[in-house]
Amino acid sequence: MKYDLEELLRGAAEVLPPEELEQRLTAGKPLVVKAGFDPTAPDLHLGHTVLINKLRQFQRQGHAVKFVIGDFTGMIGDPSGRDKMRPPLTREQVAANAATYAEQIYRILDKDATDVCFNSKWLAPLSAQDVVALAARHTVSRMLERDDFRKRYGAGRPIGIHEFLYPLLQGYDSVALGADVELGGVDQKFNLLVGRELQRDYGQAPQIVMTMPLLEGLDGVRKMSKSLDNHIAVGAPAPQMFGKLMSVSDELMWRYFELLSLRPGAAIANLKQAVRDGRNPRDVKFELAEEIVTRFHDARAATAARADFVARFQKRATPDDLKTREVEIAAARVPLAVLLRVASLTASSSEARRMIRQGAVRVDGAKVEDADLEVEAGGEHVYQVGRRRFQRIRVIRS
Amino acid sequence: MKYDLEELLRGAAEVLPPEELEQRLTAGKPLVVKAGFDPTAPDLHLGHTVLINKLRQFQRQGHAVKFVIGDFTGMIGDPSGRDKMRPPLTREQVAANAATYAEQIYRILDKDATDVCFNSKWLAPLSAQDVVALAARHTVSRMLERDDFRKRYGAGRPIGIHEFLYPLLQGYDSVALGADVELGGVDQKFNLLVGRELQRDYGQAPQIVMTMPLLEGLDGVRKMSKSLDNHIAVGAPAPQMFGKLMSVSDELMWRYFELLSLRPGAAIANLKQAVRDGRNPRDVKFELAEEIVTRFHDARAATAARADFVARFQKRATPDDLKTREVEIAAARVPLAVLLRVASLTASSSEARRMIRQGAVRVDGAKVEDADLEVEAGGEHVYQVGRRRFQRIRVIRS
Repeated sequence: MKYDLEELLRGAAEVLPPEELEQRLTAGKPLVVKAGFDPTAPDLHLGHTVLINKLRQFQRQGHAVKFVIGDFTGMIGDPSGRDKMRPPLTREQVAANAATYAEQIYRILDKDATDVCFNSKWLAPLSAQDVVALAARHTVSRMLERDDFRKRYGAGRPIGIHEFLYPLLQGYDSVALGADVELGGVDQKFNLLVGRELQRDYGQAPQIVMTMPLLEGLDGVRKMSKSLDNHIAVGAPAPQMFGKLMSVSDELMWRYFELLSLRPGAAIANLKQAVRDGRNPRDVKFELAEEIVTRFHDARAATAARADFVARFQKRATPDDLKTREVEIAAARVPLAVLLRVASLTASSSEARRMIRQGAVRVDGAKVEDADLEVEAGGEHVYQVGRRRFQRIRVIRS
Repeated sequence: MKYDLEELLRGAAEVLPPEELEQRLTAGKPLVVKAGFDPTAPDLHLGHTVLINKLRQFQRQGHAVKFVIGDFTGMIGDPSGRDKMRPPLTREQVAANAATYAEQIYRILDKDATDVCFNSKWLAPLSAQDVVALAARHTVSRMLERDDFRKRYGAGRPIGIHEFLYPLLQGYDSVALGADVELGGVDQKFNLLVGRELQRDYGQAPQIVMTMPLLEGLDGVRKMSKSLDNHIAVGAPAPQMFGKLMSVSDELMWRYFELLSLRPGAAIANLKQAVRDGRNPRDVKFELAEEIVTRFHDARAATAARADFVARFQKRATPDDLKTREVEIAAARVPLAVLLRVASLTASSSEARRMIRQGAVRVDGAKVEDADLEVEAGGEHVYQVGRRRFQRIRVIRS
């Protein structure tokens, strides 16, 4: 069985222990590769697909993919990275959310080669005594060393005792499946390592743990999240998905290629080289946006979205087409944030500052870094906020 | 239904909430009174019987006694008051120890009116999900506030996560039985209060918690315990049991009356008055020893044990019969502890000091309080260590 280690490692944050993956691949047998998803998020976005893409890379190389839907553990709620207790999900919510997952993952994974399992299958039949025995395999102090628990405990925010059972029950999934590799987000590392230890306790070869970074949202800074409104929903209409992907910075674009594109690494390297050789990054971004829209809609929708985007962009927002607007100021200079508000490019100067801090403001195409930048009277420049708002402004001293 | 509150409260360390017991008694319905025993100790001693005696007092007043054998929780091991994790009991150990309990308790309780229950009856059928739901009802920080857990956590000694489940599962016993009152040792208070809270969560009237003190051992200081070798085994032969009871101090005797005797409180008050009026405490101690030996053996054995004790005492240890021994010292005085060693009444002067501190040394029948007491040359006295070792000594300056 041939393998492409570089492809499997692409974008991974950490592999533990680092040398074991290649050792196990060398043995030439298909590996059992597991990733667990708690059905807590009915609104899947591209950030959620990073792990699924990695599963697909394993699947393409002939390994057995176990897509575990944590319908049992979901009723506890993963404490990872949380600063407070999750409200428990009801059986109905779990079922509805699980159905959403099943619908979406086959946009990425090969349905015939994917084993979708619900962990209630092996967790629900556990007896009280089994749970006690499982709990006996871990200590309170090691659990409290976890960053999230330690912070909550230190801050006096309640941690339910059932939250200590979560990593153990999730780890038991690996025992039940005999996992060789478990994938998870970097915030899942502790849980994944518990699985590894439990397998050792239960006499199995302990799984390799591979963590994937959390995808940055459209702002390029914070992790993609619906609540931060910097996300691209998997179910978004094609034009919206296309437009949002086109709005990412050239730098973030390569991150998205690495974690969201299913092109081979070599193809991405070629695109990078092309940009270095002078190709317009915007055209490369078109390719990314088309790939992703094709995945979640289809090729026709992607082509239409691109055409729509180009038309709207050219019609509404070509800087060369903009009429110059004059803004009078009483002093020798004006804060950029104030100017943007006066020119109605932002609703307020505080919004303007926020946009600057997020890297969303450009003057003559150059990103502004300093939220306190001042503009001198006498000049004429093109000011841009986000992808769509442009204005050519001449600042005049009154 | 008549009740004798004073009798029920006799010897109790704490009743929580204090006013509720009388309120519930006033309602005139038989109360469900529960005490749980983890079958961890096959060697029952009198310390274990304090709770059983209290159960009997409730039983005599017409209440329904539930003697819960923690065959399920025993496999976890009660963390109360422990400084390290207990090794889990096997099913076989639990069964053997439970049988020992069943054999002994009917020396105290009325067999026909006692409901002996094994908590595996309701705990074993709990599902993993039930245990998770139970665990969700308590927080890590409240559990770690417990004295024993806090100390172990602070000292870096491991606490198994299953130990956090113990109080919850034990508390669930009260829910399963609908307990009105739960009895336990003072070290059980936290567990008992968890039961109270769980009952409230499950919509039941929360139980009244009554804690009983831990019985002091023969030394009158530390709690009775086999490992401290200051215990009286329930299964001890009658002469040994009698002799050990006779060896307790006059002060400890009243404690034993309070917690071990099943005489009415008024009868004990009469005995106290008799001693104040000049009756020899030794004769009152005979009554205690005969009562206890009768309970665990029979009246004939008690009479024989008393006769045997008196015979041995008179034969071997009457101070008047002792020949005077002369001890020469080089100074004007000698520490009592040294004198006891020289006279072979103790193996070492440190043992002598320990015996003095335990109140086990008398000079001419008067208890010595000061471990550093010195004896002057020239006197002749009867020195006594424990119950059986006597020596008349004349101290001479050489």
